[in-house]
Amino acid sequence: MTIDQTLAAITPQSRDEPDSGIVKAAMYGFTVPGVIPLWAGEGNLPTPEIFARPATEALLNGETFYTWQRGIPELRDALARYHQRTFGRVFSPENFFVTSGGMQSIQTIVQMVAGEGDEILIPTPAWPNYGGALRILGSRPVEVPMDFRNGRWILDLDRLFDTITPRTRAISLNSPSNPVGWTATLDELKAIRDECRKRGLWILGDEVYSRFYYGERGETRAPSFLDICDDEEQVLLANTFSKNWAMTGWRVGWLQAPKALGPAIERIIQVNSSGTPAFLQRGCVAALDHGDAFLAEQVAKARGNRDLVVRMLGDMPGVRFEVPKGAFYLFFALEGMTDGDLTVRRIIDEAKVGFAPGSTFGQGGEGYLRMCYLRDPAKIEEALTRFGDWLKNHRPS
Amino acid sequence: MTIDQTLAAITPQSRDEPDSGIVKAAMYGFTVPGVIPLWAGEGNLPTPEIFARPATEALLNGETFYTWQRGIPELRDALARYHQRTFGRVFSPENFFVTSGGMQSIQTIVQMVAGEGDEILIPTPAWPNYGGALRILGSRPVEVPMDFRNGRWILDLDRLFDTITPRTRAISLNSPSNPVGWTATLDELKAIRDECRKRGLWILGDEVYSRFYYGERGETRAPSFLDICDDEEQVLLANTFSKNWAMTGWRVGWLQAPKALGPAIERIIQVNSSGTPAFLQRGCVAALDHGDAFLAEQVAKARGNRDLVVRMLGDMPGVRFEVPKGAFYLFFALEGMTDGDLTVRRIIDEAKVGFAPGSTFGQGGEGYLRMCYLRDPAKIEEALTRFGDWLKNHRPS
Repeated sequence: MTIDQTLAAITPQSRDEPDSGIVKAAMYGFTVPGVIPLWAGEGNLPTPEIFARPATEALLNGETFYTWQRGIPELRDALARYHQRTFGRVFSPENFFVTSGGMQSIQTIVQMVAGEGDEILIPTPAWPNYGGALRILGSRPVEVPMDFRNGRWILDLDRLFDTITPRTRAISLNSPSNPVGWTATLDELKAIRDECRKRGLWILGDEVYSRFYYGERGETRAPSFLDICDDEEQVLLANTFSKNWAMTGWRVGWLQAPKALGPAIERIIQVNSSGTPAFLQRGCVAALDHGDAFLAEQVAKARGNRDLVVRMLGDMPGVRFEVPKGAFYLFFALEGMTDGDLTVRRIIDEAKVGFAPGSTFGQGGEGYLRMCYLRDPAKIEEALTRFGDWLKNHRPS
Repeated sequence: MTIDQTLAAITPQSRDEPDSGIVKAAMYGFTVPGVIPLWAGEGNLPTPEIFARPATEALLNGETFYTWQRGIPELRDALARYHQRTFGRVFSPENFFVTSGGMQSIQTIVQMVAGEGDEILIPTPAWPNYGGALRILGSRPVEVPMDFRNGRWILDLDRLFDTITPRTRAISLNSPSNPVGWTATLDELKAIRDECRKRGLWILGDEVYSRFYYGERGETRAPSFLDICDDEEQVLLANTFSKNWAMTGWRVGWLQAPKALGPAIERIIQVNSSGTPAFLQRGCVAALDHGDAFLAEQVAKARGNRDLVVRMLGDMPGVRFEVPKGAFYLFFALEGMTDGDLTVRRIIDEAKVGFAPGSTFGQGGEGYLRMCYLRDPAKIEEALTRFGDWLKNHRPS
């Protein structure tokens, strides 16, 4: 068969979904020697041995059989302990479900709440995988663009609520946000909660970057739906071990949901992945129970790097951004840029620095670039020095 | 919110999907001390250290970052080598895609070929997860029951082809089959291939048990679509490391597809799992390159156990079955049984033996029980002795 014939035989939604601009930048950049990669959302440290060792021991000890679809009880207990410590109230292990990564948490949630043609509201700029997961399943992501006004990103709640239609099933909220670092206040979270309660909508919360929060009062986490919602109401939270504990390559995450959904979640996990390796979950228990010091170092490094990139980019002409309140990305506008994909490729080739194009983050993203700054500070400084030099002699496309 | 209110707020397909009868039997049986569990499809050996060790080394060496969505190149190369050795012709690594288990291979395939309301034909009795994956995604599994006639399972190809409608997108075929052990002949595979070519349908092949084939001529594998199909035609094969190499708990599999689908598969993997841990893939390379001797032992053990269970069950009154040609299950009818779920629970309680109820395998399965015989032969013998004694004094429900 020809390529065209083969492609004509799959569903339109799987055929026509665009490639992620982050993946495209990375694939392009991998071929260019000497590039400093800042396109992906991960730090530069490997997983600490104290998290890895329990996993390797369990694997070598033969913990290699099918396991609990909801996750091993020890990990669900550890999740409850971690949340109790972090949020200052009691949690039940029965509200936690282990998944094969944050993306699979989102996939599971989408399969549970959105059928064909159902809509989920997503403030943008947003991580492109939300929309991708929905579109491939035949549901509809409805983008609600934030405004960048007076140097600040603002989510207009009236506009968000006005976008609700009879097909809307959920409001998705990523706070602190990838890519812009916007972080909802407790009042904003309450307003969203109240509207969702009134309209019978699900809240889909992505608080993956909750601990990467740069409050001015010594806070160790961002405001959370967990501060203001009941564990049995219509709230579904996707999370991951990836960012906090340098475990992107493990593909383990979790989701929090009302207990009543346990059987449905278990059935969906059964047909998505049939569970997450039990031996890997042993390492995740160690990360939760013994990872606070590592996490504190990660956050301190991210905060220092944020200040570094804010200072360096702040000195460059034609560059505009809001100082991010959370997560570990800088999302900056570049004056005169109309083709972000091309500019990203040119900066890779001409400056040997790898950004991600803003357009891949949906409405309001064109004209911007994203960099991840959870990297070695010396590499960040080198990368931005190169980029600053490039800006002096080149114009963006 | 009440449980009913919460359940009313999710999609009907995720709410109403029945629990797998295999999972229900296992959950029930876990609570009863001393039961010999034969409900699940896995062997009793842990993963050999020669496969585990490269994974633990890679994990401890810090191979803990995001990785290729299609799988690491070394594993795709090893898959091509393994297939070349097993099927006696050249394969390209570009036709192989690594997944987080055979179930995720199926999930990826379904997301690619079946939209809302599309139909996929599935001969039954069949593993319940096929239907579950389709229903949860809003597609329609169409069961085509096989006949058990004169002591043999027969797939009536005319009936199969007559079931095709304008909404049919694919024929799914599991050979050797779980649960009945039916194995398609090369002529049957050709007839299905020709019909699919004529009607523009996809073949969804599950040849997971291909190596567990008990031919009488020293064959080392079952007849395969790979013997008669072009790698670029409309064939998608789901496979797994689980069964051949005692790696059920690893959750790593692969799928084979036309090269033209690479970008679509990569996008679906991105939003399903965002890839499979690279360090685990190192162990899978070792299984493919150094696992032939272990696999040969597994198959020899399965063949010996098959003969044992055939002999023991063959002596019991009211038990009927076909001697399976492949896989490692015995699917047997029990005279007078009208409620398989209840009978399974009673046999767990009263005989301390754990089977799976045939009804969970779809049309034609009621009245049967399934046992997995890739276990320690002494345990099998003990289990069937208990079951034989039970049969003397009890009647099935």
